[in-house]
Amino acid sequence: MKFLVGIDAGGTNTVCGLLDGRGNLLHKIQEPTEAHLGYEQVIDKIARMVKSLLASEQIAPGQVLAVGIGNPGLVDPDRGLVRFAGNLGWRDVEVVKLLQNRLNIPVFADNDVRMYAFGEAIRGAGRGYDHVLAITLGTGIGAAMVNQGQMYYGSGFMAGEIGHIRMDGEQAPCACGMYGCLETVASATGIVRQVREAIANGKSSLLQSWFPGENLCKITAADVSKAYDAGDAVAVEVLQHTGKLLGKALSYAVSLFSPDVIVIGGGVARAGERLLHPAREELKRFVYKGYWARLTIRTATLLDDAGVIGSGLLARQRLEEASPAQLHQHHRNGNREEK
Amino acid sequence: MKFLVGIDAGGTNTVCGLLDGRGNLLHKIQEPTEAHLGYEQVIDKIARMVKSLLASEQIAPGQVLAVGIGNPGLVDPDRGLVRFAGNLGWRDVEVVKLLQNRLNIPVFADNDVRMYAFGEAIRGAGRGYDHVLAITLGTGIGAAMVNQGQMYYGSGFMAGEIGHIRMDGEQAPCACGMYGCLETVASATGIVRQVREAIANGKSSLLQSWFPGENLCKITAADVSKAYDAGDAVAVEVLQHTGKLLGKALSYAVSLFSPDVIVIGGGVARAGERLLHPAREELKRFVYKGYWARLTIRTATLLDDAGVIGSGLLARQRLEEASPAQLHQHHRNGNREEK
Repeated sequence: MKFLVGIDAGGTNTVCGLLDGRGNLLHKIQEPTEAHLGYEQVIDKIARMVKSLLASEQIAPGQVLAVGIGNPGLVDPDRGLVRFAGNLGWRDVEVVKLLQNRLNIPVFADNDVRMYAFGEAIRGAGRGYDHVLAITLGTGIGAAMVNQGQMYYGSGFMAGEIGHIRMDGEQAPCACGMYGCLETVASATGIVRQVREAIANGKSSLLQSWFPGENLCKITAADVSKAYDAGDAVAVEVLQHTGKLLGKALSYAVSLFSPDVIVIGGGVARAGERLLHPAREELKRFVYKGYWARLTIRTATLLDDAGVIGSGLLARQRLEEASPAQLHQHHRNGNREEK
Repeated sequence: MKFLVGIDAGGTNTVCGLLDGRGNLLHKIQEPTEAHLGYEQVIDKIARMVKSLLASEQIAPGQVLAVGIGNPGLVDPDRGLVRFAGNLGWRDVEVVKLLQNRLNIPVFADNDVRMYAFGEAIRGAGRGYDHVLAITLGTGIGAAMVNQGQMYYGSGFMAGEIGHIRMDGEQAPCACGMYGCLETVASATGIVRQVREAIANGKSSLLQSWFPGENLCKITAADVSKAYDAGDAVAVEVLQHTGKLLGKALSYAVSLFSPDVIVIGGGVARAGERLLHPAREELKRFVYKGYWARLTIRTATLLDDAGVIGSGLLARQRLEEASPAQLHQHHRNGNREEK
């Protein structure tokens, strides 16, 4: 029997998962990434995690077809390079070569949102649909499009930045250097920012009594959902506005990408219908009826495992697509450093 | 030597072009489509046009690898079907089968904007770029994305409808049933509508003296460019507003598709920098700097020939991709009706 390994290397934690050849998650382990130690240490740790994962399941490295690793930031999957990852502090790190040296298994890297989207598209909420748009609403916003099992990349592997579409009427500064990006509103940070601004502007909210004084800075998006359920006007207004803006941005993506299904994941998706109801209404108002009629909107089903599963499955796909000559080169590049 | 035939079947005129195997246009002929005669008559005429084109160049049908036909409206290229084309009055017309019956050459159909985009991507302004977004600004607005020579289709072959993105602040009714679509502003009809509305709202324009009284309804987008050059305030305001709105809509497409180059074609593109300068400025303001740095914006170079060239080249690509079994099926379906 052959296996796959999927790695989700986040800014805070790294998860390694063992999958069977079809992408069923058999076992996973998690450790803090400790990015402050530098990329060599982080990659050493990941390699140790993979080895101990395999050892614990009594699997020889030779039984593993491929390893996939999802990294945050700008990743060049063709060159196996993390070009820039702010929250890891990585710039031009040859993650494929470095990890392959340590594992002697073919390694493939990609952006973590794309890995997540691939997992949801193939084995999660997008399963059975040909054209899957997956969007993650977390601290930031990411998205990726998978068409008939093929990832859409665009120039510089930079497609899918729905989070950095500038929304009319929005003004908040964004980490990307622009103002009013969708991410400043429909991310966890965006939702909390809106609540704080509403309170600062004199609106009163239950959240003030739940988080008195200085504690107000501890509010999370989940707290805003709780306040919504308690009928808090600020929370209701913020989640409705956020949902509407998300729906409008999704209308742009639907008109351009034409997905069959939109899979919504990430921590903010836990707001569920509080957010998705206004999003759906606005999306319906903003797209041609021919799109609306064929469109399904679903929340992610693999949740925290989507990245690990997608990483393993995308690695398998890239292994299958690679010619023997490319694989030889891939492996040779990987082994060069050890000489 | 092997040849290709490309057909651009528009609502008004149909153009048939003979190409060499690499897509160089050798000769073309044009006739009125006469859509009112019904689809059988139109397809009969197109078949006669192709035969006379080949005869005039002394080429046997057996020397033609494939015929491509671009139709307006919703086309299903896999089934060779024009599902709906309002300006031809066609619904579920099996254009591939019908034309193949008459020609005994493999025929491939697609939407005319995609054929145009493919021509510009492979042989026109997009040549040498990996990720080409082509947009046509004419009576309506169409767009298509070609990635490394592969057409992007999306669900229902409906991707690329940038013309039906609803733009904030715009209210004009659109043919699609919505309001404020980009097409209501940045098409030829949209530009003329804006000028007429400005005049109706009491603004004064040189165009009133050029087109006195009832003649005002004869204004074209080209006249608006002439008025712009004469310093007419209404024309300047309309073209600047139109350019800005186009730039904003393009920013959505850039953030999602990540093209290397945007090719702008269609009659309205003749406004050139009058439109493209404000479009470029607004696009720059609305996209992350990482996109702007790698992006080129060009006007189309094949002009009226892009559709014919693209049709021939896309037919060649689909012929090459088809398995022998598929081609057999393709041909058999095509011949079925004659029995």
